Amino acid sequence: MGKLMAIQALEEFGPITLLDPEEVPDDALIVPSAMMGAPTVLVEKVPSGEEVMGAFETLKNYLGQEVYATIPIEAGGINSMIPLALAARLRIPVVDTDGMGRAFPELQMVTFHLHGVKATPMVICDEKGNNLLLRTVDNGFTERLARNATVVMGGSVMIAIYPMKGSQLKASGIHGIITLTEKIGRAIREAKANRVDPIKTVLEIVGGYELFKGKVTDISRRTVGGFARGESTLEGLDEYKGQTLNLNFQNEHLIARTEVAVLATVPDLITVLDMDTARPVTTEGLRYGARGVVIGIPCTPKWRTPEGLATVGPRYFGYDLDYIPVEERVRDGNRGGAKS
Amino acid sequence: MGKLMAIQALEEFGPITLLDPEEVPDDALIVPSAMMGAPTVLVEKVPSGEEVMGAFETLKNYLGQEVYATIPIEAGGINSMIPLALAARLRIPVVDTDGMGRAFPELQMVTFHLHGVKATPMVICDEKGNNLLLRTVDNGFTERLARNATVVMGGSVMIAIYPMKGSQLKASGIHGIITLTEKIGRAIREAKANRVDPIKTVLEIVGGYELFKGKVTDISRRTVGGFARGESTLEGLDEYKGQTLNLNFQNEHLIARTEVAVLATVPDLITVLDMDTARPVTTEGLRYGARGVVIGIPCTPKWRTPEGLATVGPRYFGYDLDYIPVEERVRDGNRGGAKS
Repeated sequence: MGKLMAIQALEEFGPITLLDPEEVPDDALIVPSAMMGAPTVLVEKVPSGEEVMGAFETLKNYLGQEVYATIPIEAGGINSMIPLALAARLRIPVVDTDGMGRAFPELQMVTFHLHGVKATPMVICDEKGNNLLLRTVDNGFTERLARNATVVMGGSVMIAIYPMKGSQLKASGIHGIITLTEKIGRAIREAKANRVDPIKTVLEIVGGYELFKGKVTDISRRTVGGFARGESTLEGLDEYKGQTLNLNFQNEHLIARTEVAVLATVPDLITVLDMDTARPVTTEGLRYGARGVVIGIPCTPKWRTPEGLATVGPRYFGYDLDYIPVEERVRDGNRGGAKS
Repeated sequence: MGKLMAIQALEEFGPITLLDPEEVPDDALIVPSAMMGAPTVLVEKVPSGEEVMGAFETLKNYLGQEVYATIPIEAGGINSMIPLALAARLRIPVVDTDGMGRAFPELQMVTFHLHGVKATPMVICDEKGNNLLLRTVDNGFTERLARNATVVMGGSVMIAIYPMKGSQLKASGIHGIITLTEKIGRAIREAKANRVDPIKTVLEIVGGYELFKGKVTDISRRTVGGFARGESTLEGLDEYKGQTLNLNFQNEHLIARTEVAVLATVPDLITVLDMDTARPVTTEGLRYGARGVVIGIPCTPKWRTPEGLATVGPRYFGYDLDYIPVEERVRDGNRGGAKS
């Protein structure tokens, strides 16, 4: 969906400029753009692309300053693409930075928040024309107010949030994320032509670890409180035969574990790649019978601080598990089939 | 609570000017001010009086026009007093008009809505400093979005809503409501000195009917979805002895019925007066053991149209009852003790 929106905007409005964070003036106004809500809803409630324009217009008028550039708030799913579509329409650049170095489900789960950037003034727009300008006393209220509004507005909305100065962006963002995703995409596309293993290629680029290989035998999904929550079960294939993997998700994968071992937890990345093509499978795209390789990728060091783990660690999501970096879990033999 | 807020504001900022609607210029900006949420919450979460100032400031900046005057959105409970407190603080007049000629629990339940006035731009503020500017495509969305936000913001908030021109106010409001309530209040205060029956006096002023007299023997109340919902039971006294009255409420009383007859329904007013003083008892003020006279008052004719009844009739509130004007019910003998 996001890819289609971005391609259409590029065809209609021409190419986008990608800026290195160092090229952004310190006092320029940067506004991340995103979709908020359950991806399960979005696939049936197609955005027109105009909603997020309304959000930017409202924010620009309120702040009395032109928006210099936009960025993705997260580097996953539709939210990696929405800023590209918006940038083409508004003819503004995109900066090669996001606020997660991955994807997370809640608004305060950004490195901007760890650096004290306020989520508001924030604007929420839906496809019907409803428009909310929020100013809150903290980013926790922003999440709760915006999440409730999202549910009332039909489960998925477009947002303009965390307006910040160029200097704040440089200090708090995860830089080089768009060029990294571009590199991964190119490697996957070219792997077949070059007769190399695409999954191995991806693992090399991201510094990740193969955790499991299996076939989806069960998946339960519910759209609740504005999120797509659920869990899936994979039966092991090849060297993982006889093992079972469980994946818990809230829009994004949170925990990967077998009967005997925890393989990875947030904030490290847990990603399912299609076994043949190495294309990533989103939690809403996961289907019964799908064959995938589950990989773990170390998260940015910003998330491994006490404040980072309080914001996005396993306990924040309600799991009674300590965070252990995925590379340590792997080193200690915690892959599918191994004892914990 | 509202009375205390108004008295304090009068002492601090001086007297208020009350305008007749005809004195308001047609192009002047009028903004009703109110508390939104469950009155059960408000009695424990005291507003500072500053919240609604923030709401007016935001609306004035957004609309780029000074607010000429404020009005109560409803003539009941705290919302009859909040505009007085605000007017004193802002040194603006109050117009002798409201949007209900009574009180109702939801935002679209105003005669402004029946006349096509939009509820938004609307601002919601809480005592913590959170501030939301809503613009919606219809007044139903306004109610749902604002109600959800109210719950997140702690169950009661201050609002500035239905900004309108003087010409719209004149066409759509219920006029003379503040002077009417003033008259009722004075009559109740003076009844004792004049040795007249205060309840009879109130009934004469409002053109109402005594429906029941009894003692509260049961009351159940729950704060749910941002409303104070519940029901109370009164055992009859004097000529109503042996009869039982049930009152259903959602912030305001909706239905009054005995085992044998419906005595009154929305949109007509169902009011409990203290048996000795004739002071009104709000739904959140109703206590076990209280002795009251339940009266019915015909509502404004604006509510008795098909559009009015679709907005505030018994079926809107989920009761499978036709609306019959209270004066017809009384004429047909539907008081406590009579067969329906």
